[in-house]
Amino acid sequence: MLLDHGSGGRATHELVTRFFAPLLSNPFLDAMNDSAVMDFLGDRLAFTTDSYVVDPVIFPGGNIGSLAVHGTVNDLAMSGARPMVLTAGFILEEGLDLSLLETIVRSMAEAAREAGVTVVAGDTKVVPKGKGDKIFITTAGVGIVPPGVSLGGQNARPGDAVLINGTIGDHGTAILCSREGLSMEGVIQSDSAPLHTLVAAILTACAHVHVLRDPTRGGVATTLNEIASQSRVGIRLFEEALPIREDVAGACEILGLDPLYMANEGKVLVVLPQEEAGKALDAMRRHPLGRHAALIGEVMADHPGRVTLRTRIGGHRIVDMLRGEPLPRIC
Amino acid sequence: MLLDHGSGGRATHELVTRFFAPLLSNPFLDAMNDSAVMDFLGDRLAFTTDSYVVDPVIFPGGNIGSLAVHGTVNDLAMSGARPMVLTAGFILEEGLDLSLLETIVRSMAEAAREAGVTVVAGDTKVVPKGKGDKIFITTAGVGIVPPGVSLGGQNARPGDAVLINGTIGDHGTAILCSREGLSMEGVIQSDSAPLHTLVAAILTACAHVHVLRDPTRGGVATTLNEIASQSRVGIRLFEEALPIREDVAGACEILGLDPLYMANEGKVLVVLPQEEAGKALDAMRRHPLGRHAALIGEVMADHPGRVTLRTRIGGHRIVDMLRGEPLPRIC
Ligand SMILES: Nc1ncnc2c1ncn2[C@@H]1O[C@H](COP(=O)(O)OP(=O)(O)OP(=O)(O)O)[C@@H](O)[C@H]1O
Ligand SMILES: Nc1ncnc2c1ncn2[C@@H]1O[C@H](COP(=O)(O)OP(=O)(O)OP(=O)(O)O)[C@@H](O)[C@H]1O
Ligand SMILES: [Mg+2]
Ligand SMILES: [Mg+2]
Ligand SMILES: [Mg+2]
Ligand SMILES: [Mg+2]
Ligand SMILES: [Mg+2]
Ligand SMILES: [Mg+2]
Repeated sequence: MLLDHGSGGRATHELVTRFFAPLLSNPFLDAMNDSAVMDFLGDRLAFTTDSYVVDPVIFPGGNIGSLAVHGTVNDLAMSGARPMVLTAGFILEEGLDLSLLETIVRSMAEAAREAGVTVVAGDTKVVPKGKGDKIFITTAGVGIVPPGVSLGGQNARPGDAVLINGTIGDHGTAILCSREGLSMEGVIQSDSAPLHTLVAAILTACAHVHVLRDPTRGGVATTLNEIASQSRVGIRLFEEALPIREDVAGACEILGLDPLYMANEGKVLVVLPQEEAGKALDAMRRHPLGRHAALIGEVMADHPGRVTLRTRIGGHRIVDMLRGEPLPRIC
Repeated sequence: MLLDHGSGGRATHELVTRFFAPLLSNPFLDAMNDSAVMDFLGDRLAFTTDSYVVDPVIFPGGNIGSLAVHGTVNDLAMSGARPMVLTAGFILEEGLDLSLLETIVRSMAEAAREAGVTVVAGDTKVVPKGKGDKIFITTAGVGIVPPGVSLGGQNARPGDAVLINGTIGDHGTAILCSREGLSMEGVIQSDSAPLHTLVAAILTACAHVHVLRDPTRGGVATTLNEIASQSRVGIRLFEEALPIREDVAGACEILGLDPLYMANEGKVLVVLPQEEAGKALDAMRRHPLGRHAALIGEVMADHPGRVTLRTRIGGHRIVDMLRGEPLPRIC
């Protein structure tokens, strides 16, 4: 096991699709979406999980507790579900400061309250000093998918537009800067936020949304590669349209990294027919988490499985999944 | 944070009830049962989670993968739910051997198949060497509670009988012996097993079951203390009735430990009216996981919150929750 297997890029993708998924195979898992969606007593339930091992545990814009709530709420939202209830498993390192734990659990409670979800069950394990690292949290979430909503990475179609609700790469850059002690003018903040009300606004405004996905580990580049490969379509990004904060761009340049590969924790990629793009952008821009929404790309029939970038000067380059240089413990 | 906070005894109980639960408080969590049970679209859903950090990851009778399935299936079963779907979050240590991971995930898949549950979503994180320990798994599970079933630690009533489906302390003793390199004549095996079909048999045979609970960390002694305190009743155990394997008793004596405090992973405590005790014992004994079922105690009105043991020679001693000497990483 290499650190890179947890970066969320090519190595993670291959570990999951070639190793885990075949062993545990079933139609829900094999769909490889953000949440599994199942018929359940006549309704549709979404069910998902994420483990959080972010380092540092407190970072500009949040901490591992609020992140663990937002991340799972967002994976539910990406399937169009109304997030309902969460569980939380805590793996604590011996010697962890109780006041640090309190800060984290308070944020978790606050994030849950804000998102309208309830933490209904938990678990607490302690490992000896040096066998963990302060605190790891695993949240699982259940939500209800409204009738008629059917989203998934396999649904992108040639002619679709690709939108995002705001700036790219904030979370990953915030974590790395905070870890490296790098500070720009002002501290770069994580975008960690619950996206379910933004998603509800999009789904109310637009009847034909094909894909929603949160570009977390591996960033926009990796997530679009997943969609391109699940839907067997090409995706073209427009460089000049990518919303990137100046400080994020600057920090990434210093770190030798590309914002397109940096994790986001409050962003959603929206893939839907061009005709609905305007309505979706309007709906997003009216929401506090969508003020910088932009149309950033398009879906094409050619080069299925491939993502390309049309540069400012009109050239084209391939945008692969994240690979190489691991970016460990971003979330 | 002390290791003892994860032992499942008094320290864990106080951390959860005085620290976590007040911060995250809601009626489902506050019920402090094995699963949260919620009304959901006209049906009742059970939802639960456990993190697994057992050391060693492979032990006589199972491994962390099968244990993670059994443990969550059992917490669902304890609420009377039919276990349906699981999620699994993996926290892997850099350098983990892929063939060890394969053994574990294969066991997980097999345990899920045997229990009739499906792992519908997962997550994979990797932490640097020395920041984790091989593999931690967090499973969450959802099940459906049949109409009319209403179980909970608060439901024990004076006059109830206390039953168990077999021998006490096998899992914890197996882990400690394997960790200490202690071997009796033959290796002590964990009792790790899925209990939902046994539970279904009990619930079919008996209409008035009050409490089911799996005596995991902290063992039978701690779990009965939880029930005594939730239900504000006294519980009396009969020493001569406690089913304990000879090798487990012997190993515990060498280790200076009491089987009553050792974790079980395939046992259920059943609290129900005396009149139904015979039917429950018959139902259990007909099931492969209940051959050594026994009536081990009774619920009383006096000494609410207290568990006592009537010894072989007719004396009485208080059986407190597990405290002191931590037993870390038992599950
Ligand atoms: N160990 C695993 N076993 C089975 N399925 C897994 C495993 N890890 C991930 N998956 C599945 O692979 C898909 C992608 O998982 P991934 O964790 O990359 O998505 P995500 O949660 O949206 O991203 P992130 O974890 O960065 O927030 C999901 O459908 C998930 O259920
Ligand atoms: N960190 C936590 N935050 C909130 N609730 C918690 C937490 N840890 C445990 N709980 C709750 O406390 C109760 C007891 O949890 P515990 O883990 O001891 O039970 P269990 O899963 O049946 O036992 P084990 O973990 O040994 O298998 C449950 O209702 C659980 O939801
Ligand atoms: Mg996601
Ligand atoms: Mg996620
Ligand atoms: Mg637990
Ligand atoms: Mg339990
Ligand atoms: Mg449990
Ligand atoms: Mg994930």
